[in-house]
Amino acid sequence: MSRNKKNIAISIGDINGIGIELALKNHYIIRDLCHPIYCINQELLKQASELLEFPIPSDFTIFSTYHDFLIKPGKVSKKSGMFSYLSFLNGITLVKKGKADGVCTLPINKESWKKAGINYVGHTDMLRDIFKTEAIMMLGCEKMFVALFTEHIPLKDVAKEIKKKKLYQFFDNFYKSENPQKVAVLGLNPHAGDNGVLGNEEKEITKAILKINTILGIEVFFGPFVPDTIFTKEQRKNFKYFIAMYHDQGLAPLKALYFDEGINVSLNLPIKRTSVDHGTAFDKAYRKENTLSNLSYLNAIKKLLIE
Amino acid sequence: MSRNKKNIAISIGDINGIGIELALKNHYIIRDLCHPIYCINQELLKQASELLEFPIPSDFTIFSTYHDFLIKPGKVSKKSGMFSYLSFLNGITLVKKGKADGVCTLPINKESWKKAGINYVGHTDMLRDIFKTEAIMMLGCEKMFVALFTEHIPLKDVAKEIKKKKLYQFFDNFYKSENPQKVAVLGLNPHAGDNGVLGNEEKEITKAILKINTILGIEVFFGPFVPDTIFTKEQRKNFKYFIAMYHDQGLAPLKALYFDEGINVSLNLPIKRTSVDHGTAFDKAYRKENTLSNLSYLNAIKKLLIE
Repeated sequence: MSRNKKNIAISIGDINGIGIELALKNHYIIRDLCHPIYCINQELLKQASELLEFPIPSDFTIFSTYHDFLIKPGKVSKKSGMFSYLSFLNGITLVKKGKADGVCTLPINKESWKKAGINYVGHTDMLRDIFKTEAIMMLGCEKMFVALFTEHIPLKDVAKEIKKKKLYQFFDNFYKSENPQKVAVLGLNPHAGDNGVLGNEEKEITKAILKINTILGIEVFFGPFVPDTIFTKEQRKNFKYFIAMYHDQGLAPLKALYFDEGINVSLNLPIKRTSVDHGTAFDKAYRKENTLSNLSYLNAIKKLLIE
Repeated sequence: MSRNKKNIAISIGDINGIGIELALKNHYIIRDLCHPIYCINQELLKQASELLEFPIPSDFTIFSTYHDFLIKPGKVSKKSGMFSYLSFLNGITLVKKGKADGVCTLPINKESWKKAGINYVGHTDMLRDIFKTEAIMMLGCEKMFVALFTEHIPLKDVAKEIKKKKLYQFFDNFYKSENPQKVAVLGLNPHAGDNGVLGNEEKEITKAILKINTILGIEVFFGPFVPDTIFTKEQRKNFKYFIAMYHDQGLAPLKALYFDEGINVSLNLPIKRTSVDHGTAFDKAYRKENTLSNLSYLNAIKKLLIE
């Protein structure tokens, strides 16, 4: 291996889904960018290669993740759930031990995780538990990144989370992770509350913005902005980073604009981790007619290579 | 006036804003589409024309809306608030009396309305009160329209509004107004609740969809869809009409994609009413360097001309 390329651990995701196809078919592109280390084992790799009728590249380095079972394209399964969990664990281990500079995850299936007795909502949730830190979930592409202040909670529970102290902590963690020049913070309510007529949570957001900027000594965080007009073409010229108060507030406009190229980045962790921003696509797994977009996968790898 | 063109009442909006500039400068385009009747008076029109250094077209038909005061570009004002209210009232009256086929509204300023003692949140709210019907607010352009199930309420109050009975009534009103072939109904929660893990309101939505389709005897309403992936390019090929559960869920992606060309349409009313989807833009009012986009205004007029 040449010295100037980074080692990147690839967590294969649910092997009944499209992850392994992306890994195999894009290896010749990926290996020009970094040294990928795929967390899979020879037996499963062979099965996948045969099912996909795609030969295993000779330099396809694996870090053997043990689990022995038959691949069942498109099926929710306890065994494939457990395998994807182990593959991710191995990816994390490689980075923790300094054998890789970051881990890129291919998609897991939540139902399969549940069947396997793994109770995490997803990768980010698991990372929080392993590293005992408030990992931040950020999605997007180089044109536009959205960090989520709240993530996988019912909409009715969002408003009570909007508190100055937690917001400030989030802004601080975000700033330390991404070192952004300018960040647009969204309001919570329609028209950002319209001076209190449509909700009051914007007061907490305003206080938290004031605090972080005061402590930083420079104005980095702006807002709270009206949520439905901050993503217009005009506004996107002014900001690359956005902080959304809840899941769909940020992700609906992001995916309307840049679905194919989007990635998921975990911030505020001792390791670097990115992910594709699509699911296992069980309906497309191991299909001959496939034309899978690799934009998200390539962008996820590239983000790990930025210093 | 030729017989085959429709008469359209134009409510001028807040005359301290950009409405009158749009009306004057686009008259030569608008008059080819319809017979516009502008709800203003000769004195205010003359003032605006002088301030804008733009002559009054000879065929600029007005329906005199009386109010006598000085235009103050970009200023919140009691008098301009009252004038914009009267201009809208006259527009409505013209349609009610059969003198116009629809009314197109230019933007009002809410603060000016408040100062003038007018307590409506906006045009739609006023229409609801006048006609005593549940007017539906729909925004968008011919590529994509979003109807809002809830509008100007705090985010924390949205979840409790999601009830089968009200949803069904909304779907029924919407169907009767737009006669759509297919409508995508959004869920409320992240991942549309993920089978109840992230919220339960999707059950109410599902029941309401089932009921409306059963009563119609055909499948028109689909969903509830995952809110952050229903607006992707792929999905937008399948639907033109979307029903959002709350303001920013629908409008943030809509405006990210089609801000300039969007319009606001009032449905479920005895009269036809459309509006531009931008504000008074006080910062741009009566500026010589203006290059105002007329897309929203032209689209609002065109929507009124569709049978």
